[in-house]
Parts: sequence; structure tokens; C-alpha cells
Amino acid sequence: MLNETMYGYGAESSKIREIFSYANERKALIGEDKVFDFSLGNPSVPAPPAVRASIERSLALPPEQLHGYTPAPGLPEARQAVADSLNRRFGCAYSAADVFMTVGAAASVSCALHAVVSPGEEVVVIAPYFPEYRVWIETAGASVVEVLADQETFQIDPAAVEAALTEKTAAVIIDSPNNPTGAVYTRSNLEALAAVLERENARREEALGHAQPIVLISDEPYREITYGAEVPWVPALYEHTVVCYSYSKSLSLPGERVGWVLVPQVSEGARRVMAAVAGAARALGFVCAPALFQRVVVDCVDEPSDVAAYARNRDVLTQALASYGYTYVEPDGAFYLWVRALEDDAEAFCERARAYELLPVPSDSFGVRGWVRIGYCVAYEVIERSLPAWKKLARDYGALPA
Amino acid sequence: MLNETMYGYGAESSKIREIFSYANERKALIGEDKVFDFSLGNPSVPAPPAVRASIERSLALPPEQLHGYTPAPGLPEARQAVADSLNRRFGCAYSAADVFMTVGAAASVSCALHAVVSPGEEVVVIAPYFPEYRVWIETAGASVVEVLADQETFQIDPAAVEAALTEKTAAVIIDSPNNPTGAVYTRSNLEALAAVLERENARREEALGHAQPIVLISDEPYREITYGAEVPWVPALYEHTVVCYSYSKSLSLPGERVGWVLVPQVSEGARRVMAAVAGAARALGFVCAPALFQRVVVDCVDEPSDVAAYARNRDVLTQALASYGYTYVEPDGAFYLWVRALEDDAEAFCERARAYELLPVPSDSFGVRGWVRIGYCVAYEVIERSLPAWKKLARDYGALPA
Repeated sequence: MLNETMYGYGAESSKIREIFSYANERKALIGEDKVFDFSLGNPSVPAPPAVRASIERSLALPPEQLHGYTPAPGLPEARQAVADSLNRRFGCAYSAADVFMTVGAAASVSCALHAVVSPGEEVVVIAPYFPEYRVWIETAGASVVEVLADQETFQIDPAAVEAALTEKTAAVIIDSPNNPTGAVYTRSNLEALAAVLERENARREEALGHAQPIVLISDEPYREITYGAEVPWVPALYEHTVVCYSYSKSLSLPGERVGWVLVPQVSEGARRVMAAVAGAARALGFVCAPALFQRVVVDCVDEPSDVAAYARNRDVLTQALASYGYTYVEPDGAFYLWVRALEDDAEAFCERARAYELLPVPSDSFGVRGWVRIGYCVAYEVIERSLPAWKKLARDYGALPA
Repeated sequence: MLNETMYGYGAESSKIREIFSYANERKALIGEDKVFDFSLGNPSVPAPPAVRASIERSLALPPEQLHGYTPAPGLPEARQAVADSLNRRFGCAYSAADVFMTVGAAASVSCALHAVVSPGEEVVVIAPYFPEYRVWIETAGASVVEVLADQETFQIDPAAVEAALTEKTAAVIIDSPNNPTGAVYTRSNLEALAAVLERENARREEALGHAQPIVLISDEPYREITYGAEVPWVPALYEHTVVCYSYSKSLSLPGERVGWVLVPQVSEGARRVMAAVAGAARALGFVCAPALFQRVVVDCVDEPSDVAAYARNRDVLTQALASYGYTYVEPDGAFYLWVRALEDDAEAFCERARAYELLPVPSDSFGVRGWVRIGYCVAYEVIERSLPAWKKLARDYGALPA
């Protein structure tokens, strides 16, 4: 009979999607250029011309070959292209067998979670965190354990993670460059996290008489979107890492749903995890990643992301907001600005921002109170036109003298 | 920790995919033209030229618009195009709100099941049935209840369905034109099924004091592939029908993953089911159907399927097999031939067929014993070249005098 849990996920929708819908209604009502929609991570930077060229090249193939089922883990040449690219960039030695092509980032994380988590277990997330993690973790039958990031730097707080680990902890999800804070976890921060996990793994092995390592799920859709910071390669720092990736942001293809899961096949345990990822993809109904866009990955795997547009948005927005009296986390990557709301209640702050047609996302669904997320992956003109509204809102709150 | 259920789904893989892999290895070894792979439902008929034309037209759009996220239920114009097409064909009055675009047939059925089934409940399937139904039903937390089709006609046996219903029955899945038998359920057969379900719904309503209807999931990826038979429109015969569709077969796009779920919004209950479908798509990690191919649906929704090639394969294959002494179900639709194995053990029969490089799929994973499925969506030459092998195999068994 009707599944009330699924009904709940559908009826409530995500806060982000809800604001996005409100923005579209509002635009229809008062004009596209009057509404400042900072809700969604929908890149305004177009896909690079190489994507179109790749599609056009593929169209010369016989359609039954081009559009046919690919093997469930993906086209061999796509998996190889991903492995080769990682090897070039991070000095590793992956093969196609380490890569499983997926239907985008959400599928990557959903399949990874279903693979490494069993019902009744726990998954640690670093708050603030991408709200859909909660939905996917709960759908895999596990519980969410929120661990606050360091509230100054928004780096991981290794001691807090250690305190949150239990015998039921199956996995930790990290997301760097971070959505929503824009933080990029430093090498030493990740090393400290790895040390915590290794200690717990050693304790477990002693207690259980066999290994039962915690899996680190490194969700990296924003890896390519950085403003100078190094994004360390996590599997080099912690063996039991599963990397989730997508071309939604790096190639601006969010609607086409293509990405991958990497499980380095370094042990029998890792081979079992990869089989479970394949099993999860099958069980959830994914079949294969879209075939045409797997070929786009082959052709465009090393295509650079156009970060300049986001960098300009970031600079203009942060300088202006600072001058209006807002405080925020200086973003090292991704295209989100994490701004302190001008009152404790972020929802109330967002309500008041709506009077100026400003539509950020309140922090509550990210697991913390008192902040908002501004997605600055919008067109530059939206940033520019929104500045007077941000200024008025600050005046309203007395953050900026009138 | 490692999810053993998902590991199992990944490690065992599907029998169909396993034979497909064996076929590819064997082809590499002895030559493409020496191996007769009848395992997969991968259409040999190319996508119609209109698909390529549609993609080329879309490539003129700004890439950030073309490849951006679509709304979770799909592009409004794609949903409207599907509704309009159904209205034209079946004299109904659907709107875009009745249609939810999905990542292909597997996603359609997986989301529909997660929406209308709760853990601990039961789902009836008509055996023989598509083996992945079991995986998706179990992943939704429910049990599979197998009900044998009529063993003469391979129509639904309404009395057997009625006997199998319990208070825990949440849904019945049907699949017509049928995979694997090629049967197309007649109007009177579907009416009889509807009457059984209505009776049970009435009993329940009396017992419970409120309605708790059984949902009929009509999985229709083969709707367009028929050889003259009428494929009745199921929602016209039973109100609580959810239709699952895909363009994998009708437009030969199995690798691109695009389809839809239809939930006619005729009642508050139906609106809740649609919300639950949306919730399931979100919870499983689908986000949206591939954007470019949603536009292909807009342009190609009424594109006729090229059934002639399959019809020729069917005619040549059935006439030959009949003359060799095989018995089979006369297929009215889809592109599968359901043939009685020449010994009770279908696995053993398939083993022996391998000596002649013939690769059908044994019936065991379809829920019955003693049959094989021949996927005749292959190139005509494969059919033609395979005939001497089928003849020798029949001789081997003494079905055809030497």
C-alpha cells in the first residue's frame, strides 16, 4: 500500500527545489530580471564546445551501436578514460575495473551507500551538509549521525568525528570542495580524519578478530571548481575510500546524469565493495549510465572547467556583502557562499529577504541554524543586479547604517 | 558494513547479462558470425532518423539550457507531449501532471514499486516473468508471489491470481506484450483480472472501513512491438493502474535511459501515489531523466516503431523451429520466442545448445522450468545463420529424425 516514507519525500520536496519553484513562479509574475534566485546548483557556465563536438562525432556511429545498452559498469573505453585521467592527475595506477559509470552524482552516492551500509547502521556526515544525504542514508536503512564542522574554518573536526564513531558506524561522507560552505579540506585535515578512522579500524579488528573498516565516501562533484586551493586525492590518504564523481558541475551537464564511482580494487574487501556497488545499481533500477554521455566522457574527460566566471561572481559578491556588514565563510571552492543570517532564525531571515526578491536557502535543512547558502553559479548580471537588494536587507537589520 | 544483499545482486549478476558476457567472449575467440547470441533485448533495429534530427536541433540551444537540470518530474513539454500522445491514441484526457519522466523502464518500475509497496507486503507477478522484477520487489522490501500464467495461452489466469491475493497484496505487475512469452493480454483477459481486483478491493473496503485498493502496475516497454494484436489501454479497464513505459524498444534507445510513469490523477489517492513516485525517484537517486533525451521524446513521441524487421525474424524463426520439431508460444508481440526445451532441465538444454554456439536463456530465472527464451531482436543474418544449428540440436534430441 502507499509507502508513507516515499510519499513524505515526494510531498515535502527538498527546500532547495521548493525555493527554485517559487523563484520560477515569481519570475513569471514580476519579470525574470527582478528575481534573484540563488537556490539551485544549476551552472550558468555553458558546457564546453568539446561536448557538442563529441555529440556530433558520436552521431556518425550506427544508432543501434550508439544508443544500445552499455555494459552495466559502463563502456570499457569510458571507464578506461576515467582511470587514465586520474592516473595522470594523481599519480595512481587505476584500471577500468576500478571505475563504475553512474547516472550522475546522486546515483553515485546512493549506490555507494547501498553498497557499504546495512540496515540499522550509522553514517557520519559533516554538518552543514548537502540535505539529500539524509534522504539517501535513510533510504539505505541507516541513521544519520551529524558531526559539526569546525565553526571557524569549516574544516572537519577530527576529534568530534572520533567521538561520534560507534560500533555501528559503517561510513563517513565528506564533500570537498564543500556544498554548502565552499570549504576545501586541507591535506593535514584529511590526514587527521584518516588517522581517526585507522585508529577505530584497529580497535575493531582487535575486538572482532577480523577487519571491518569504516568506508570513507568522498563525494567530489565540485573537485574541479576551486580558486587556487589544492584538493587532495583522498584514496591516497585512506585506503578504504570510495570516490563519487559527476560531470554535472565540471562539464556543466547536470541534466544529463553521468558520473562514476571509484573503488580502487586493492583488496578482496574492495572487490566485494565494487560488486555491491554493481548490485545496488541493479537493485535500484539504474541499468547503465546514459550511453551517449558516456562517450562524451571519453572525449571530454580532461576538458578544463571554466572557473573564471564563478571566480568573478565570488569576488564581486563577497566584496559587496562584506562592505554591507555580512559575515561569511571565504569560499575556496564550489560555487556556494555560506553567509551568517542577520538573525538567529534563518527561515525568518529568508522570509524577510524575499521582500527584496532575494532567494538564498536557509541552513536548517543543511543541519545547522542561523546561516544561508547563496548559490552564485548564476549569470554575472544576477549577482550585479542583486547587490542593492542585499544592501537594503542589511540596512533593514541595522547591519549597515542607513 | 558491506551490504550482503547488494553484494549478492552484484556478484550473481543476471543470468541474461551472464550469457551476454559469455557470448562476447566467445565471439572474440571464434568470430562474431559464429556465435548466436539470443540473450539480451538489445534492439538491432536502429533508432529512427527523427532521433538524430531531434538531437541535432537541440544542439542549437544554449548548452546551459539544453543540459541543465530539468524539474524532477521532467520537462513540462515532454510530460505534455506524452499526455497528448496518449490522449490521441487512447481517447483519454491526461495532462502533464499525470506523467513523471523517468530514467528508463527499470527506473519506472523501481519507482512505482517503491511508491505503492511498503515493507512486508506482497507483489503478484505472472510467471514466467522478467527476472529483474524479483530484484526490484525485494529491494522495495516486499515479497514476490508467483502466479502461473495459463499454460496453454500464456494469458493471465484470473482465478489463480484471485487465489493468490492476501490482505498483504499491495500490487500486481503485468507486462504485455509479454517478456518472455510474447503473449499479448486480450481485452477480456484484462477485464477478468480487473474484476478479480475490484472484488478484492470491495472485500477490503468492507473489512477495513476504508479503501485500500490493489495497484496494477502495467509495465509496457513493448507496447509498440506487436504483430497485429490489440494492446488494450489498461487504465481504461482498471482505475488503480500505474503505467510504466520506456523508449528503449519503441525508439531503440535502451542505452539512453528515458521513459515515464503515468499515474492518472483521478483521485486524492492517485495524487498521493504520484507524490510517492516523485519521492521514490528522489530517494533512490534519480534526480531527473536525461535532459537531451527528454527533448527527443518531445520530438519523437509519435514516431512509429519499425516492427517489420522483428516480424521477419519472428516468421523465419518460428517456421524453421516448427519444422525441426520444436514447440513454442506463438508470439503476438515483443521480440522474444518462448520455446519448450527438449528436456525437462532447461539449464542442461542450454548447456547442450552451447555446443552449437546457440545462446538462448533458460526459463528458471523467469520463474518456471523447462523452457528457453530466444531474443529475436538480433540482425536477420543471425537468425538465418543459426537455423542449421537449431536443426542439429533438434536432431541431437531426436525431435527431428536424422
